[in-house]
Amino acid sequence: MINTATAPPPPSLDDDIDHDALDEDYVLTAAFVEKVVDAADDGDGLKLRSLLEDLHPADVADLMGFLTSEHRAVVVLWLPPELLAETLPELDDGIREEVLERVPHLILAKALQELDSDDAAAVVEDLEDDQRERVLSAMPDVDRAAIEDSLGYAEDSAGRLMQREVMAAPKFWTVGDTIDHIRGQGEDLPELFFDIYVVDPLNKPVGGVPISRLLRSPRAMPLAEIMEPINAIAVDQDQEEVAYIFEKYHLISAPVIDAAGRLVGQITVDDIVNIIQEENREDILRLAGVSDESRGAGVFGVVRSRIPWLIVNLGTAIFASLVIGQFTTELEALVYLAILMPVVASIGGNSGTQALTVAVRSLASRELNSANAVRILGREVLVGLFNGVTIGTLLAGVAWIWFREPLLSLTIGLAVLINLVAASLAGTLVPLALDRLDRDPAVASPVFVTWITDTVGFLSFLGLAGVILL
Amino acid sequence: MINTATAPPPPSLDDDIDHDALDEDYVLTAAFVEKVVDAADDGDGLKLRSLLEDLHPADVADLMGFLTSEHRAVVVLWLPPELLAETLPELDDGIREEVLERVPHLILAKALQELDSDDAAAVVEDLEDDQRERVLSAMPDVDRAAIEDSLGYAEDSAGRLMQREVMAAPKFWTVGDTIDHIRGQGEDLPELFFDIYVVDPLNKPVGGVPISRLLRSPRAMPLAEIMEPINAIAVDQDQEEVAYIFEKYHLISAPVIDAAGRLVGQITVDDIVNIIQEENREDILRLAGVSDESRGAGVFGVVRSRIPWLIVNLGTAIFASLVIGQFTTELEALVYLAILMPVVASIGGNSGTQALTVAVRSLASRELNSANAVRILGREVLVGLFNGVTIGTLLAGVAWIWFREPLLSLTIGLAVLINLVAASLAGTLVPLALDRLDRDPAVASPVFVTWITDTVGFLSFLGLAGVILL
Repeated sequence: MINTATAPPPPSLDDDIDHDALDEDYVLTAAFVEKVVDAADDGDGLKLRSLLEDLHPADVADLMGFLTSEHRAVVVLWLPPELLAETLPELDDGIREEVLERVPHLILAKALQELDSDDAAAVVEDLEDDQRERVLSAMPDVDRAAIEDSLGYAEDSAGRLMQREVMAAPKFWTVGDTIDHIRGQGEDLPELFFDIYVVDPLNKPVGGVPISRLLRSPRAMPLAEIMEPINAIAVDQDQEEVAYIFEKYHLISAPVIDAAGRLVGQITVDDIVNIIQEENREDILRLAGVSDESRGAGVFGVVRSRIPWLIVNLGTAIFASLVIGQFTTELEALVYLAILMPVVASIGGNSGTQALTVAVRSLASRELNSANAVRILGREVLVGLFNGVTIGTLLAGVAWIWFREPLLSLTIGLAVLINLVAASLAGTLVPLALDRLDRDPAVASPVFVTWITDTVGFLSFLGLAGVILL
Repeated sequence: MINTATAPPPPSLDDDIDHDALDEDYVLTAAFVEKVVDAADDGDGLKLRSLLEDLHPADVADLMGFLTSEHRAVVVLWLPPELLAETLPELDDGIREEVLERVPHLILAKALQELDSDDAAAVVEDLEDDQRERVLSAMPDVDRAAIEDSLGYAEDSAGRLMQREVMAAPKFWTVGDTIDHIRGQGEDLPELFFDIYVVDPLNKPVGGVPISRLLRSPRAMPLAEIMEPINAIAVDQDQEEVAYIFEKYHLISAPVIDAAGRLVGQITVDDIVNIIQEENREDILRLAGVSDESRGAGVFGVVRSRIPWLIVNLGTAIFASLVIGQFTTELEALVYLAILMPVVASIGGNSGTQALTVAVRSLASRELNSANAVRILGREVLVGLFNGVTIGTLLAGVAWIWFREPLLSLTIGLAVLINLVAASLAGTLVPLALDRLDRDPAVASPVFVTWITDTVGFLSFLGLAGVILL
C-alpha cells in the first residue's frame, strides 16, 4: 500500500490488531461496530481510543457512517487529533458537516495544518461562515493563504482539486542536481510525488520526468534529455474533463497551469479515482431520478432527493391518462383494450430506458459525438424496428391465444412496433439534444423519454384500435 | 503526463501537429476522421501514415471506433508497428477481435513483446485458439511463459491484472544500495514504478517504500526503517475487490502475493481506473436491462444485448395484464378506472427504481451491509410512507378535479400509498436478497421490482375500487 494522503498506513494483512475490526471484504464487522457502540454508551473513553487508534482514516469514516449521530459525537471526542484530521476528508458530506460543528476551532485549525492543501480546502469548504473565519484566523498565514487560494477557484475545477505542493526542476538541471535538491529540501515538497515537472525560466512546464526514470538515469544526464511531453491541465478546467484526460492517457499525475501557462500545482490520480466514482454515482442516481442523495442522510434528506422526480413523473403519468381519456368510447366498447394497453406502454418505457442509458454512457465516455451521431441513430432505429417486430409478434401471439381476435393481435403488434421505434429515437435524440444544449443528459432524459413512450404507446394502441377494431 | 504503458507520450498541448486532430474536449474532430477516411478510400498509405503516426494510442483506438470495418482494415495496414502494438490494449473488445484477425502472426508476436506482461496477455486472450498458438510459438520463451502464466489465472482475478515486472529489495538493503541497484539494471524493471517492495528471504513482501520517499532519505538509511506496512493482494482476488481496496486506501500500487505469501507481481492504479469505469458501466447498463453491450457492436450485437430483458419485461407486463383481467366488471362499470390505473403503476415503478438504484449503489460501495441493513430498510419504509402520502394526496386532488368523485380520490390515494410502500420494500429487499445469494443485484433486481410494483399497483387500485366504488 502507498497512501498519498498524510495518513498513517492502512493495516497490513499480517497485522493482528484489526483482524476483528475488518472482515475479509474490508468492511467493518458488526461485532466491532457493536464494541464501539457499547464503549460509547458506557462513556469508556480509554476503550474507545484503543479500539479506534489503529484504524485507517477510511475505516474511521466508514464507522461514522454506521453510527447514530449521538454515538458519533462521543467517538469524535476520543479520536486522536491526528487521526481526526486525516478522517475529515474521508467523511461523507452530511456527516462531515455534523462532525465539524462539534470540533473546537483551535483543534480544527491545528488538524488542518497536517493535511495537503487540497484536502484542507475540501474540509474548510464545508464550514459555516463564522466557524470558517475562526478556524482560518487560528492558522499560520502560509497555510491560510493556501486554503483561501484554493477556495478561490470554482467548485469542481482543477484549481480546487490540485495540491499546490509540487516538485519542479529547471530545464538545465541534471539528474544528479535534481536528486540532490530533493534530498536537501524535503520539507517543501509534496508528501508523495510521482513526476518531476521540468520548467522554463518563466515557470512554464515544458516536460515531465517520472521519478522511476530519474532513478534509472545516470547522474550527469540533463533532465531535458529524458523528459516527456506533458498534458498540462488548465486551472479552470472542469474536474470531469480532468478525469477524462487522466483515464484516457493513463496519467498518474499532471501539472496544473494558470492562464499565463505557469505551473501552479499538480493533480494526482488518487483524487481522480474519487471523482470518477463520484461522477458515476451521480449519473447512475440521476438516471433513476434521484438527485444528489447524500450518504447517511435522514428520512427527510432521502425524501427531498426523490420526491421531485416522483412529482414530475406524476405529471407525465397524468398526461398519459389524458391521452387515454380521449378513447373512452373504445375502452367502454372493448374492455380488453384496458387490459392490454399497459403492456404497450411498459415495453416502450423499458426499451426507451435501454436506448437512453446507452446514449448517456456513450456521451459521458465520448464514444457518441457529432462525428458519429447519425450513424448511431441509424443503428438505434434498426434495433427498434427489429425489437419491435420480435416483441410485437410475441405479444400479438399472446393476445390471440387469450382473446382469439385476429384484428386485436394486429393492432397491438403494430402499436408495439411503433412504440419501440419511437423509444429508440427518443432514447437517443433526447440525450443528444440535452448534451448539445450543455445540459446533463442524465438528469432530464428519463422524464422526457418515458413521457414520449407512454404517450406514443397509449395513442398508437388506442388510436389504431379505433380505426381497426371499431 | 506520465504514461504507465510503454506508449509514446500523448501530444503536448503546445504541440502543433495534433491541433486539428483533437478538439478542445480531447475528442477526434469530424474533419480529422474525414481526412483519414478519404486517405483510406484513395489507398493513400503515405498520407495515412503521416496522419496517424503522431497520435496517442488511445486516440488511434478512438479513431477505430469511428471507422467502418472496411476503413479499419486499411488503417491497420498503415499503422507503424509499434503504434499498432500500443493501440491493441486500448481497443474495445469487438474491434480488437476484428483487428487481430487482420494482423499477420509474426508482426503480432513482435508487437506483443513491446508490451508489459499484463497488456500482452489481455491481447492474446482475445485470439482464436489456432492464431494464439501461432503467435505464442513465434515469441521468445521468456515472453511466452509470462503470457501463459498470466492467462493461467482466472479472468477478472488479480493475477490476470498484475504485471510480473516489479521492483523488490531485500530487507537489509539501504537506500543507497537500492538506488545503485535500480541504476544498474534497468532492463528487468517495470517501465514505470511507484513503490519498492521490501521482501524477506522467502520473497514475502514485508513493507513498501514510495520512491519519492526513497529519494528524500539519506543513502545510508536502511529500507526497513522507512518502509510502510502494505496491503498485499492475493493473486486469486477478484478485480472488483482489488479496485475497492485501491479506492478505499488511496493506493497507487500494491504487491500481489501467491498462496504462500510470496511476491509474484504488482498492480498499478492506472489499471484500476479502467476497472472502476468498466464495473460502473456494467452496473449502469444492467440496471437499465442491457446485458454487456460491447462498444462498436453492430445492429444484431445491440439487439442481442437488449432483447432478453424486453422479453422478460413482456412476461411481467402480461402478468400485470392478467391481474387487470380479474377486474373486468369494475373496468366495464367505471371507465375512469382504466384511465387512471396506469398512473398508480407508473409512480410505483419509478419509486421502486429509485430505491433499488440507491440500494445497488450502496451495496457496491459497501455502505449497505448486514451491520445496517435493518436500519436502512426502516428508513426506506418511512420514505415510502411519506412519499406515498404526498403523491397520493396530489393524485387524489387531480382525480377529484377531473372526475368529481370523492370515493375515487380516496381509492387512488390509498392505492398510491400502498404501492409506494411496496416499492420501498421491494427496492431494498430484492437487491439485498440477491446479494445474500451471491448474485449481482444489478442484473435481476429491476425485473423483480417492476413486477412487484406493477402487480401491487393494479391489484390495490382495482381491488380497492371493487370494495369502495362498486
